[in-house]
Amino acid sequence: MSELRREPITRRWVLITPEPLKISSPPYSSFNFPQTEANLCPFCPGKEDQTPLEIYAIRREGMEQNPKEWLVRVVPNKFPFFRIEGDLNRRPEGMYDVMNGIGAHEIVIESPTHDENWSTMEESQLERVLKVYEERYIDLKKDKRFKHIIIVKSQFGQTVFHPHSHIVAMPFVPRRIDEETGGAIDYYRRKDRCIYCDIINEEIACKKRVITENGSFLSFAPFASRYPFETWIIPKDHIPNFAEDLKKASLAKILKEVFTQINSLLSHPPSSVVFHTSPLEYSYSAEYHWHIEIRPRVKEGMGFEWGTGFFVNSVTPEEATNLLRGESG
Amino acid sequence: MSELRREPITRRWVLITPEPLKISSPPYSSFNFPQTEANLCPFCPGKEDQTPLEIYAIRREGMEQNPKEWLVRVVPNKFPFFRIEGDLNRRPEGMYDVMNGIGAHEIVIESPTHDENWSTMEESQLERVLKVYEERYIDLKKDKRFKHIIIVKSQFGQTVFHPHSHIVAMPFVPRRIDEETGGAIDYYRRKDRCIYCDIINEEIACKKRVITENGSFLSFAPFASRYPFETWIIPKDHIPNFAEDLKKASLAKILKEVFTQINSLLSHPPSSVVFHTSPLEYSYSAEYHWHIEIRPRVKEGMGFEWGTGFFVNSVTPEEATNLLRGESG
Repeated sequence: MSELRREPITRRWVLITPEPLKISSPPYSSFNFPQTEANLCPFCPGKEDQTPLEIYAIRREGMEQNPKEWLVRVVPNKFPFFRIEGDLNRRPEGMYDVMNGIGAHEIVIESPTHDENWSTMEESQLERVLKVYEERYIDLKKDKRFKHIIIVKSQFGQTVFHPHSHIVAMPFVPRRIDEETGGAIDYYRRKDRCIYCDIINEEIACKKRVITENGSFLSFAPFASRYPFETWIIPKDHIPNFAEDLKKASLAKILKEVFTQINSLLSHPPSSVVFHTSPLEYSYSAEYHWHIEIRPRVKEGMGFEWGTGFFVNSVTPEEATNLLRGESG
Repeated sequence: MSELRREPITRRWVLITPEPLKISSPPYSSFNFPQTEANLCPFCPGKEDQTPLEIYAIRREGMEQNPKEWLVRVVPNKFPFFRIEGDLNRRPEGMYDVMNGIGAHEIVIESPTHDENWSTMEESQLERVLKVYEERYIDLKKDKRFKHIIIVKSQFGQTVFHPHSHIVAMPFVPRRIDEETGGAIDYYRRKDRCIYCDIINEEIACKKRVITENGSFLSFAPFASRYPFETWIIPKDHIPNFAEDLKKASLAKILKEVFTQINSLLSHPPSSVVFHTSPLEYSYSAEYHWHIEIRPRVKEGMGFEWGTGFFVNSVTPEEATNLLRGESG
């Protein structure tokens, strides 16, 4: 059983999961990614018996009878961070705090096609993936043991190449979301305005960090980008939660556009995509604003960030924006 | 000129430094490190003209006349995070906050020998390195523009292989130190005890995470280790600041011992070593306790940690301790 242990000084929860995790080393410093052969891939159609039992799927009409025919498929992770059965059993251990690693860890297999990615995928397929995220989010939300749900996608960064993403429901609010809601609440108290809404207005007005936009979403390089080519996508309307009034067609469109820019400029870098949404227990409906953060892994630091929480970035967000837009600096 | 930009939501300072940083990609996922040939190495004796002017050095008696003879040498970083000249010029930019990247960024060349590391280096040489850290810390501390000094060493992780470390003085307290002092103050308010002193007592009593110890220092795997084989070294006495009563001989001894264990068990992994000490302006003398955090880079995550601030670790600290001690689990 995996264990959540609380780091006593900063009070951050860490999952200690002694099983060998099969999700391993992205090849940080190179663009060569390990590409599982399609015929060995456990996520390809016909290999359904190699994954745990299907939780959810989207099928076209007429596909219902054949388990091997599907458009998007959700299965529990074979090597999960958290397990769904059991209770948290919060307890002390000496001076420390521990609880069981209870939660959900699902894999969304985004397409039957082995070698697709978010720049090559049809918009309609990307829209189906978003619908699956939304459905699973709404379903997992019902479980009162969970305090937060996070959706994470790694592009080209994993041992399994087939396009997939992770939905993780956890019994605490992760540190980064905690920091964001804390900061957003502080700002709201001072201004009676959502800080993300202010950022959207500022970025649209000054233009130089806007990568692309459509009616519903804005994509921009954040002013204090922590990483080269860090990119955020945010709904222009004030919406605290991902699963609230999700404009799937517009989001699919901008995601495809952004990944086309990233993949073409940076030659398909390993990338992490994280959906930041309001926690389950307190929704911070006036203060928080859901958004997506994308980090192309084009360069790694020297351990400074790890040790200090201080980021050094050698590409200005303005230059990144120009390059991604295809304009010369 | 590099620029410090404040991330407006979480209020974290990020350095945007458009110069091409020469400190680049550690080869995260492999044990093969880029080894500069000794004859091309700018840090080897005889290449003193390839570095900026010497700031400080330790020489043996009789070496004074020859700039090419030295035991430890400190030079400004040729590609610094921060520049020493100028003022901070704190200013708004639209809704954001900016200041100039003022600070110091020095390189400690730890030995004239190109291929040494902290497991092969003589204890007396390691002691000299610590003395240099201490001297430079005390000197940089006098500059009232600086709020924090951090010492970072990367073993085998950089383009320059020759053993060296970084001393960085910065005009703000980095986030991780801020979190630690915040947590330590909270704990002190509740208990009237230093949390680090409590951890030391707990670890010595329960033994199972103690890697090694001597009269002055304890080395242990922290209860909520964020990374496989994460190792801390801490003075047993309550000392908030690194440069206060530094027991250099004992520290050199335990550092060599710990790196011998790490390098032998994990085949010389790229590792980061960060000295955590109290900030300059407020020393938190009752609450804070200086220590060293070591992270061997043996495995990388899937981007979860980056996006969420939530760490998943697949090696328990107890198992790591047994393996490092050379005992079977």
